Amino acid sequence: MAKELEFLTKRSEDYSKWYNELVVKADLAEQSDVRGCMVIKPYGYAIWEKMQGILDAKFKLTGVQNAYFPLLIPKSFLSREAEHVEGFAKECAVVTHYRLKTNETHDGVVVDPEAKLEEELVIRPTSETIIWNTFKNWIQSYRDLPLLINQWCNVMRWEMRTRLFLRTSEFLWQEGHTAHSTREEAEERAKMMLQVYADFAEQYMALPVIRGVKSESERFAGALDTYTIEAMMQDGKALQAGTSHFLGQNFGKAFDVQFLNRENKAEYAWATSWGVSTRLMGALVMAHSDDNGLVLPPALAPLQVVIIPVGKPANMPTLDSKAAEITAGLKALGLSVKYDNADNKRAGFKFADYELRGVPVRLVLGMRDLERGEVEVMRRDTLEKQSVPLGGIEAYVKGLLDDIQQNIYRKAKEARDARVYECSSYAEFKERIKDGGFFLCPWDGTAETEARIKEETQATIRCVPFGVEQTPGVDMVSGRPSVARVLIARSY
Amino acid sequence: MAKELEFLTKRSEDYSKWYNELVVKADLAEQSDVRGCMVIKPYGYAIWEKMQGILDAKFKLTGVQNAYFPLLIPKSFLSREAEHVEGFAKECAVVTHYRLKTNETHDGVVVDPEAKLEEELVIRPTSETIIWNTFKNWIQSYRDLPLLINQWCNVMRWEMRTRLFLRTSEFLWQEGHTAHSTREEAEERAKMMLQVYADFAEQYMALPVIRGVKSESERFAGALDTYTIEAMMQDGKALQAGTSHFLGQNFGKAFDVQFLNRENKAEYAWATSWGVSTRLMGALVMAHSDDNGLVLPPALAPLQVVIIPVGKPANMPTLDSKAAEITAGLKALGLSVKYDNADNKRAGFKFADYELRGVPVRLVLGMRDLERGEVEVMRRDTLEKQSVPLGGIEAYVKGLLDDIQQNIYRKAKEARDARVYECSSYAEFKERIKDGGFFLCPWDGTAETEARIKEETQATIRCVPFGVEQTPGVDMVSGRPSVARVLIARSY
Repeated sequence: MAKELEFLTKRSEDYSKWYNELVVKADLAEQSDVRGCMVIKPYGYAIWEKMQGILDAKFKLTGVQNAYFPLLIPKSFLSREAEHVEGFAKECAVVTHYRLKTNETHDGVVVDPEAKLEEELVIRPTSETIIWNTFKNWIQSYRDLPLLINQWCNVMRWEMRTRLFLRTSEFLWQEGHTAHSTREEAEERAKMMLQVYADFAEQYMALPVIRGVKSESERFAGALDTYTIEAMMQDGKALQAGTSHFLGQNFGKAFDVQFLNRENKAEYAWATSWGVSTRLMGALVMAHSDDNGLVLPPALAPLQVVIIPVGKPANMPTLDSKAAEITAGLKALGLSVKYDNADNKRAGFKFADYELRGVPVRLVLGMRDLERGEVEVMRRDTLEKQSVPLGGIEAYVKGLLDDIQQNIYRKAKEARDARVYECSSYAEFKERIKDGGFFLCPWDGTAETEARIKEETQATIRCVPFGVEQTPGVDMVSGRPSVARVLIARSY
Repeated sequence: MAKELEFLTKRSEDYSKWYNELVVKADLAEQSDVRGCMVIKPYGYAIWEKMQGILDAKFKLTGVQNAYFPLLIPKSFLSREAEHVEGFAKECAVVTHYRLKTNETHDGVVVDPEAKLEEELVIRPTSETIIWNTFKNWIQSYRDLPLLINQWCNVMRWEMRTRLFLRTSEFLWQEGHTAHSTREEAEERAKMMLQVYADFAEQYMALPVIRGVKSESERFAGALDTYTIEAMMQDGKALQAGTSHFLGQNFGKAFDVQFLNRENKAEYAWATSWGVSTRLMGALVMAHSDDNGLVLPPALAPLQVVIIPVGKPANMPTLDSKAAEITAGLKALGLSVKYDNADNKRAGFKFADYELRGVPVRLVLGMRDLERGEVEVMRRDTLEKQSVPLGGIEAYVKGLLDDIQQNIYRKAKEARDARVYECSSYAEFKERIKDGGFFLCPWDGTAETEARIKEETQATIRCVPFGVEQTPGVDMVSGRPSVARVLIARSY
């Protein structure tokens, strides 16, 4: 994977190109030879694994258990829930045969027409149907509820235009599916999982998010309510980072999942589903990184500290030995550390490479520093360098990592807050939306107005945000009385 | 998931039926409505997660990194390696279309003939082809090697006859893929990973295994050597629990993966691949469990200790309080513990249910015991009960779990060792193989003899075992001089 460090396009020149280049150059992911499917490279996967580990523990603390359901879904399952099929059945990979055979010229394989499936199978775009078909056998009584299940898996949606992490035909995700005996409990669970996602985004990804509920036209296909967390990227566009759906009894009815309640009467079970995906990787990159490369929050950085020696060959044994001491001390504090004394790369190359990869803290060990009892410390978020006494360097670095984590969040929050605008004039909105930003606007609640905004400005209603004072107002487009102040933005 | 405890078929009556029933009744897995694909239920998945966690850490200690490659493989990739296509291209799920559309009667969906793929895609049966196609871009110089990659994923092989965990069309596994600059290093890696699997099987699964190398006809399609670990089930049949392949330069050549060596000359990279799958779950169940249900080694048991109170309602507060104290003490030792004071199930039902689920240690708390300062402890492996003083119960239970882990291994090893036979007479072999067992027999090294044994006895050469003294001998079938003493058995 050796590779010359090349020029990275600047964000100000072409934000979109900067992102595409950075994902590849920082070794996070690359396009595969299979249309729309990506290869997640080891460095990118290591970040995803950290995300998985933290989220998985959070889910389990709320009583969720992991399980695994089939990749393939019978075509007929998709049609059971009327809205769901509209939303998902269309663009998906269809398995029609189960065998290949050698071709006539004996130099390849062809599909064996004899091996045609009676009913086609679809690669899961999401698993509500197959899971609720299974839940039918698991749920008889209120004592079997709530049933709190999650699976980590791959899913596939045949996308026409793809971008690494943000929109790929195959992606990795977790999908939680829960069944409840009451409407209230299901609604509470849907909101609870949104809060888990929001906490994860803010505390680990250092990504401030706005929590809210989607408008009807932006809901998950088959949901009564879709809750969302919306984050702002550096170009002022919104990225939907996670959603949690209250599905009512739609899937309970579609798959006939009934339970006997305490009064021994049959009722349909209430459902939720909720998911986050490798799309979070895209959000992480887009939110914090700069023209030098990735800026990773220490909580998710696979490598938190890199130590690089600078000196003549004769001095290397001294530097190696001091580095070993510091490394051991940092590891004892639970930090991930790498000492890079490879002699086939110049120090300058290494500096740029670890900056590109977003390693939060870099220590440079030189003889002159060492003689003064110091080491040069650089923090990736601000690129500031400082000489720090070697005595107590471990505690200093640990404190610095905490500070970096907080600073990245603070910076992202300040940048976002500065671009959230109250706006009640459609003329003003149409002008300002070109520069990005989140607009809080009064909305009359009609799909008609929503469609017009989308058509005329490419912006969409991201959500009705929670915790925003809902004072009476007038819809900026139709002039009709508003039913809510909604968050409008262009989005990924 | 409430369910009456039902009769479990005895092993002696019908071992196969016992296994099928146990997997379902112990809530490990069940058949889905998709042919050959299983649902792994939360209790089964929790065991798989433990296996994953331990193996993943072991892989990483040897320098392996995780990554993720596409689920779908272009049909033409499979034909690149001549033997590989023979072994894998035939029975696999083929994606031919990427869209469904509403049918004419508007009550379902049909495949949209307009959305036919130019080249069909196959759901990965294994990923050598797509990974080596990617490695081509990652490897330029000897400095990029070794490349040590692993992925945890689902794979699909269209099996005609399936059994939960042992043989399913879709299964979960890990597949390691490494590239090296020398033949020696690749061979060493293939053997190293076999040793990782063997240690895992013996130390965690409590499953003694025989390490060896496969005969040519039993090799992985495209390998120069396949190393294997073979375990004996209680019916005397062999189960291949993991394999590690030395692939030579076959995939390097098929996908043109060349690197510049130290002398700046281009060479093809050397390859290995290695995998274990959810099949290990089947091995775990078949090797240790009994007529009462699962017997789980404590190292893999999702729940290690269950505490059950027995007493009148009036005494429950006293028992609850004592149980809370014991639970806290056990958890402080890192053990997983559940206190089950549910009042809607009889104690007898609970006893049987936790036995069925293989919880290694059960504590029963009763008032009389409590007054004597004792608690009743049952170990699942032997079903022995004992009264143990409450003082120091935590350390006692921890020690007991260690003892159970070792005892399960010892028992499996003694049972296996008693059924490994030296055999040089084909007549004797044909008679005795009916009762199962592992037979060490002299073999002339020909595929012809191997095929005859298989045809006449349904037994196969499992491997040329390592560490068996290879004295000269005469092939028991052909009478020709033997080249090796091989392990022959019927197998899963």
